[in-house]
Amino acid sequence: MSHASRRKRLRYSHRRRNPPGSAPGTLTVDPSARPSQASLIAYQAQTYHESPAAAIDELLQASTPPEIRWVNVEGLGDVKLLQSLGQRFGLHPLALEDAVNVHQRPKFEDYQGHLFFIVRMPLPSPANTTANTTTVATPNSSPSSSLEEMQRFHSEQVSIYLGPQFVLTLQELPGDTFNSVRKRLRTEGSQFRRLGADYLAYTLIDSVIDAYFPVLEHYGELVEELELAVVENSSPNDILKIHALKRDLLSIRRALWPMRDMLSAILRDDTPLIQDTTRLYLRDCHDHTIQLIDMVETYRELTSGLVDIHLSSVSNRMNEVMKVLTIIATIFIPLTFISGIYGMNFDPAASPWNMPELRSPYGYVSVIAAMTVIAAGLLGWFKYKGWLG
Amino acid sequence: MSHASRRKRLRYSHRRRNPPGSAPGTLTVDPSARPSQASLIAYQAQTYHESPAAAIDELLQASTPPEIRWVNVEGLGDVKLLQSLGQRFGLHPLALEDAVNVHQRPKFEDYQGHLFFIVRMPLPSPANTTANTTTVATPNSSPSSSLEEMQRFHSEQVSIYLGPQFVLTLQELPGDTFNSVRKRLRTEGSQFRRLGADYLAYTLIDSVIDAYFPVLEHYGELVEELELAVVENSSPNDILKIHALKRDLLSIRRALWPMRDMLSAILRDDTPLIQDTTRLYLRDCHDHTIQLIDMVETYRELTSGLVDIHLSSVSNRMNEVMKVLTIIATIFIPLTFISGIYGMNFDPAASPWNMPELRSPYGYVSVIAAMTVIAAGLLGWFKYKGWLG
Amino acid sequence: MSHASRRKRLRYSHRRRNPPGSAPGTLTVDPSARPSQASLIAYQAQTYHESPAAAIDELLQASTPPEIRWVNVEGLGDVKLLQSLGQRFGLHPLALEDAVNVHQRPKFEDYQGHLFFIVRMPLPSPANTTANTTTVATPNSSPSSSLEEMQRFHSEQVSIYLGPQFVLTLQELPGDTFNSVRKRLRTEGSQFRRLGADYLAYTLIDSVIDAYFPVLEHYGELVEELELAVVENSSPNDILKIHALKRDLLSIRRALWPMRDMLSAILRDDTPLIQDTTRLYLRDCHDHTIQLIDMVETYRELTSGLVDIHLSSVSNRMNEVMKVLTIIATIFIPLTFISGIYGMNFDPAASPWNMPELRSPYGYVSVIAAMTVIAAGLLGWFKYKGWLG
Amino acid sequence: MSHASRRKRLRYSHRRRNPPGSAPGTLTVDPSARPSQASLIAYQAQTYHESPAAAIDELLQASTPPEIRWVNVEGLGDVKLLQSLGQRFGLHPLALEDAVNVHQRPKFEDYQGHLFFIVRMPLPSPANTTANTTTVATPNSSPSSSLEEMQRFHSEQVSIYLGPQFVLTLQELPGDTFNSVRKRLRTEGSQFRRLGADYLAYTLIDSVIDAYFPVLEHYGELVEELELAVVENSSPNDILKIHALKRDLLSIRRALWPMRDMLSAILRDDTPLIQDTTRLYLRDCHDHTIQLIDMVETYRELTSGLVDIHLSSVSNRMNEVMKVLTIIATIFIPLTFISGIYGMNFDPAASPWNMPELRSPYGYVSVIAAMTVIAAGLLGWFKYKGWLG
Amino acid sequence: MSHASRRKRLRYSHRRRNPPGSAPGTLTVDPSARPSQASLIAYQAQTYHESPAAAIDELLQASTPPEIRWVNVEGLGDVKLLQSLGQRFGLHPLALEDAVNVHQRPKFEDYQGHLFFIVRMPLPSPANTTANTTTVATPNSSPSSSLEEMQRFHSEQVSIYLGPQFVLTLQELPGDTFNSVRKRLRTEGSQFRRLGADYLAYTLIDSVIDAYFPVLEHYGELVEELELAVVENSSPNDILKIHALKRDLLSIRRALWPMRDMLSAILRDDTPLIQDTTRLYLRDCHDHTIQLIDMVETYRELTSGLVDIHLSSVSNRMNEVMKVLTIIATIFIPLTFISGIYGMNFDPAASPWNMPELRSPYGYVSVIAAMTVIAAGLLGWFKYKGWLG
Repeated sequence: MSHASRRKRLRYSHRRRNPPGSAPGTLTVDPSARPSQASLIAYQAQTYHESPAAAIDELLQASTPPEIRWVNVEGLGDVKLLQSLGQRFGLHPLALEDAVNVHQRPKFEDYQGHLFFIVRMPLPSPANTTANTTTVATPNSSPSSSLEEMQRFHSEQVSIYLGPQFVLTLQELPGDTFNSVRKRLRTEGSQFRRLGADYLAYTLIDSVIDAYFPVLEHYGELVEELELAVVENSSPNDILKIHALKRDLLSIRRALWPMRDMLSAILRDDTPLIQDTTRLYLRDCHDHTIQLIDMVETYRELTSGLVDIHLSSVSNRMNEVMKVLTIIATIFIPLTFISGIYGMNFDPAASPWNMPELRSPYGYVSVIAAMTVIAAGLLGWFKYKGWLG
Repeated sequence: MSHASRRKRLRYSHRRRNPPGSAPGTLTVDPSARPSQASLIAYQAQTYHESPAAAIDELLQASTPPEIRWVNVEGLGDVKLLQSLGQRFGLHPLALEDAVNVHQRPKFEDYQGHLFFIVRMPLPSPANTTANTTTVATPNSSPSSSLEEMQRFHSEQVSIYLGPQFVLTLQELPGDTFNSVRKRLRTEGSQFRRLGADYLAYTLIDSVIDAYFPVLEHYGELVEELELAVVENSSPNDILKIHALKRDLLSIRRALWPMRDMLSAILRDDTPLIQDTTRLYLRDCHDHTIQLIDMVETYRELTSGLVDIHLSSVSNRMNEVMKVLTIIATIFIPLTFISGIYGMNFDPAASPWNMPELRSPYGYVSVIAAMTVIAAGLLGWFKYKGWLG
Repeated sequence: MSHASRRKRLRYSHRRRNPPGSAPGTLTVDPSARPSQASLIAYQAQTYHESPAAAIDELLQASTPPEIRWVNVEGLGDVKLLQSLGQRFGLHPLALEDAVNVHQRPKFEDYQGHLFFIVRMPLPSPANTTANTTTVATPNSSPSSSLEEMQRFHSEQVSIYLGPQFVLTLQELPGDTFNSVRKRLRTEGSQFRRLGADYLAYTLIDSVIDAYFPVLEHYGELVEELELAVVENSSPNDILKIHALKRDLLSIRRALWPMRDMLSAILRDDTPLIQDTTRLYLRDCHDHTIQLIDMVETYRELTSGLVDIHLSSVSNRMNEVMKVLTIIATIFIPLTFISGIYGMNFDPAASPWNMPELRSPYGYVSVIAAMTVIAAGLLGWFKYKGWLG
Repeated sequence: MSHASRRKRLRYSHRRRNPPGSAPGTLTVDPSARPSQASLIAYQAQTYHESPAAAIDELLQASTPPEIRWVNVEGLGDVKLLQSLGQRFGLHPLALEDAVNVHQRPKFEDYQGHLFFIVRMPLPSPANTTANTTTVATPNSSPSSSLEEMQRFHSEQVSIYLGPQFVLTLQELPGDTFNSVRKRLRTEGSQFRRLGADYLAYTLIDSVIDAYFPVLEHYGELVEELELAVVENSSPNDILKIHALKRDLLSIRRALWPMRDMLSAILRDDTPLIQDTTRLYLRDCHDHTIQLIDMVETYRELTSGLVDIHLSSVSNRMNEVMKVLTIIATIFIPLTFISGIYGMNFDPAASPWNMPELRSPYGYVSVIAAMTVIAAGLLGWFKYKGWLG
Repeated sequence: MSHASRRKRLRYSHRRRNPPGSAPGTLTVDPSARPSQASLIAYQAQTYHESPAAAIDELLQASTPPEIRWVNVEGLGDVKLLQSLGQRFGLHPLALEDAVNVHQRPKFEDYQGHLFFIVRMPLPSPANTTANTTTVATPNSSPSSSLEEMQRFHSEQVSIYLGPQFVLTLQELPGDTFNSVRKRLRTEGSQFRRLGADYLAYTLIDSVIDAYFPVLEHYGELVEELELAVVENSSPNDILKIHALKRDLLSIRRALWPMRDMLSAILRDDTPLIQDTTRLYLRDCHDHTIQLIDMVETYRELTSGLVDIHLSSVSNRMNEVMKVLTIIATIFIPLTFISGIYGMNFDPAASPWNMPELRSPYGYVSVIAAMTVIAAGLLGWFKYKGWLG
């Protein structure tokens, strides 16, 4: 399969890798999955231990109970590692299967002994990188920009398992939004270290949700740019840009709505794994998803309105073309007719009724004058109708 | 009834065969129903018995209680067989009637002594067969492809009865998505055999739902292809393809939405026939239907957006045609008028006011020059307006 | 009031006959109501008694308690009869008032001592009669068919009162869908006779709902026909047919949605007048209404899509017209200009600069050749642009 | 403020008269409010007393407990009167404030000691007066009818206070729909007089709701007329009529939806001020609002469909214009070109190649024949394309 | 960042200032936030004390318990002040963080020991200032008015903290709608002073909600003006005005919907901090938000309808242009053709078949007469088709 067709698939077809009919709980890894790279952070109020590239034994023996362990795996290519971790932390096979099927919607599930969250982390696409710069290049300005290249929003699935004293995160790709969390953990004497594993899980979810704010800011700017572009000199291409924008906003919406439902479900759930103080923070998180959805819906409505403006502007341009044609044709067709009359070859010699004007001394002048009057009259009429300028 | 009219009926009119007013519970079989072909699989942790073409007596006596029996009937043409099975397993007459009325929506019903599920299995249409190939032929590319031939999605009704230690499946047509289930059952020592009849029922439902993933992948590709087609060289035919796509997505949606409701209903139901461990798997199944619906809704929205692109592109093409006409006419109509002027037959001999230009030595050259200037001016104006190229 | 204006009123304005401000419970009969015609069926497991044209006394004294009595009244013109029946069976005045106000929505109400249902029975319109034939004549093919004649769906209000051991049905018009019920009742030793009055009421409701299936089949065919018509040679009339179809589907939807709500309400209600076994049958009925609504909604969506196809096809036709004009005009206007040039009367004798071509021996041939080249070039350009064919 | 601008304000801007920030419960009367005119009806099973223009003292002392008192005030200009009544009947200040802020939505509120209803009574506009006549003048047929004059639906706020043994109604304007209620009360020995104040309140609400039926009948007729107008000879004005109709239906909908919610709220409320028998009547009332809303929604959908018909008919008209132009131009432009050819002045004397046809004896006849053939061929082609007629 | 780009950001991108991944509860102040300006009002039934520019110590020591203290801070630039106040009044860090992130949606949160409200106060934009004048200048009448300048609605976030005996309000900008509240508090012996802090909080919320009424009145007028403009002489600019209006109404809607949810949440909450009497007032407030939302939704629907009118009027204008062209061209093209015929140079001398008309004495007159008849006929036909005037 070529790279291009893979990208195409990535866009719409959210494949589950397990062939239809496999036994549930089977871990069938996508051959294109990245190799797994595990890391371990273990901490307590006073202690802190970090293994950026932890070996599997280290992960499995990381079991000094009072410490909170955070195991982070980037890349889902190593089934064995995932299975060992699953056994080590007592994860349900279905929860593990969901992690490797990377087109899941965000969700929350309460298994016995551990909680399971899926979130979707926005990928550092052009959207993210340019969002923080003030000069935003006009997107897709080159005429060769195809609809496919306009696609900007991609997200990565992150599975979070929360058990007593541990958090396990499985990421599809290397690179994440968790660096600020790591930094806060590393800070000696941080309040963070005194809080439980549930607070760590909250912080991770929060950092994912926060990452949508710059993305949406960027889309807000895109909407505005497109608004101006459509209004000022609507080109046939604009409808494609509108469509691409709609498509992206639809993708973001599909990532955010279930995230909100997930947070509502957590708030309703009465699991002892989440403490009441953490619940307050999760409520705040929930508010953020609502705010994000609000923004997406606003952009979607504004983008829909742009279709009307575009169609109206296409019609108006056609109106203008028609007016030019009508003005020119309406003025010159009658004049040409008159000149045609006097181009007829009736023989004035045959009878005094045959075009006596041709021999009248002022015939030509009168005809030119008549034509001028007609042209002026028509121009005046057009002006009256407001068709000129 | 001809084959064509039958296909037509199949498309929209979901006939119930029972004439209006029949007694409820009557089994009136569609004369066009396929002959019934029954098979039996009976298993226990250690034993396994399979009769691919079971006789009715065998089915009815298949009653060694600790074994789990799965009776599968393909083709609903044999009323007697169905009635015997109904009596044998104690099925409610209404549940049996629903099985032979093959245009039911998926549903779940809890009768005393047994549960009843209806699911819709996607038929192995071109959609399924081509979905796994990477080269997808442009659909409907021949100009003769009518709207009817564009129809791609069909589904078959499968009724599943789950009682203590038995599962009965009634299928409309031969061929199904259950082969992988059979294969897993045949595997000696499989964990599967140790689980109850409810797990078997779950596996069957799951295999049906899984069969929608390749179908939707295929539709995802169709949406993309259509997107590109509409954008690049929108033909009047495109609106038909969009309509056909919408129609198919609507059919899929109609199959999937009630499937989701069915699974919610099962999860809420507190029947002892389904164990808690199986419920976890059904919850997973429920998630899959949500994911499928999410995909369908996305495709539907994208397809709707294509109508706007199509209409905009039709308008733009008309704009282009108009511009060509306007440019040509606007340039040549005034020039023709001028040539008409000098084609008038006013007699220069009659008076010095009568077309003295005709005899001027540079008259012709001046007129040609004037015409060139006018044409160039108009071209420049069009260029300024951006109508050229 | 003329017949035409009455029909017009019938269509949209659902008049309540009671003048605003009348005392509630007043029976004010529509002067246009049909004369009442009552019939009585009384039965028990072993006995059966039928009076096709029962006198009022017979109805009122029909009181041998263990027998189930079904009083059916066709035509609502006889207030006295209705009032006597109301008193005889202890009906609430409001329930009786609703029966004579014939534009009610289907509903279910639980009065003390009796239940009250309103259903809407589809009238045997062309829709019904042609639905069972396979050859469906193109609807509204004559150019004189007005929008009004396209109206096809009408329904009749049927009020059903269910009390202990009796069912009273009040119909707006003679003729109904109950014949199959009567036939089943007449069958000696039928299981039906052993069941209660609630089962009779269920059967009547079921027969009304079943009558919608052929109606909707017919509309499914109409949708398909219209689809083909719009696609193949969209005429300006099509939008009217689409509108008429939408209007009918809206009417059907308005009849079916409250029917579904009515059945849900019955299922939720815990009245002792309905037994649990009958409830199972009513649940089945409820499923049928959901299936019908599903069909209506599908047709409505498909019909909406037809508007887009129609508008697109109107635009495409205009495009085609414009192209013909543009091709012809663009080819001939420049050629005519050239011929105009050589029609000018500059005197070649006056100077060698004055149209020397006119006297050149190959002038005419060259001009004709030039014209041919120009025409061919333009044709080639049009071909390149895909405007030919 | 001129009258016109006041009317304009009346249309959309539902002013609350209290300046932002006033203390709640303040009675600030609109300077444009009508002077108050109070009347009193007091009755019991056997007694009846009516004061059409009651003085304030009479109202305040109207306190013989077993009698039911109905105080009706038309015009809200007299703050003092309202305040005295409020004190006399123990009304909550907020309930009184709502009565003078005349752009409230219908609502129901349960204050301690009394209930409070707001309903909106349709004003006797042209809609009402013409609704009962069979000949309905074409609305807005004069070309000068502006969008503003097309506004037809206005409603008046009526506040109803129900306490033990009293009903107080405050109306914005003189004139109401309560005359039939008064008439029924005046009837000696009427059953009405035996029922409580809650029944009186129900009757008043019912008479307001009933008043919407003729209004909606009228709009049903407007929808039909517009349907026919748009279909038959769609004029550019039609879109305005459609817009005006939509606007009116929107106003009616805004009056009816909260009325339905109000009645649901009353039915759910367990206040002792409303007896169970009256609740049955209110349930009936609730059904009527549902029926009314159903009608409004149907009209709204039909009206929306008219926009499509209108746009399609505008496009079709343009198509027709274009066809005429194309047919005429396509036939005559080539012919004119041919005549232009033979109008060229190449000198046949200069060479035998120069237009020898001009001197051929049958040249003219051949050319005329060729032109006829071309014209006929083009006409045939147009006929084949279906562009003629 | 330039001022223009800042304004642009303000419009759509609701930035949270905290960089993604900050610890929750961090107070990171926007560098562009206004400097804080605090004021204190403390009152009791008999005492009243107001410090318009209170120092921080005064605020912190303002603690004589029986008095109710209202601390108002305008401008959020001073983190220290906010933190001291937070500590002083025992506010939750998350509640404080929300106050400085100024793009929150209105919400209500019940923290232990205090309640937290966010409301959005409409900014005194042109909308507000012109709303109270009767002469409303045509908006955006200058051709240079860009889409951006049409933006009219902006709102400011106000955070309200309600605890036992205190209210703390944090405003984004100086200037508010609270002056009437202050005035009422200053009034000696006012009932207001006797009520609790919850009543003060209610009054503040109420004054914010009331401030939307004049804003919406203004938008009602804008909708009407636009309606008239679009109907009377629809200009291409109108679609932009419609879009700007839609955008503003969307913004208002986004401010009001969560305000309604907030009030519902307060009414459902059983906090002891709000007394039952105050709840009645809050219910009134809730009604006002419903009324406001109702207005917004109505305006939104009307504005949507304007798009149809605009598109229809664009099409109608094009129709008119086309008609003029068609009439002129259709009349003169055939006439020009006839004159072209008689301009051909066939030599009448060569044969009697060659244009004998040219030498006929009445040839010219006949041709002119024929032309007149043709022109008249065509004009008559156009008149019959209704294309003239």
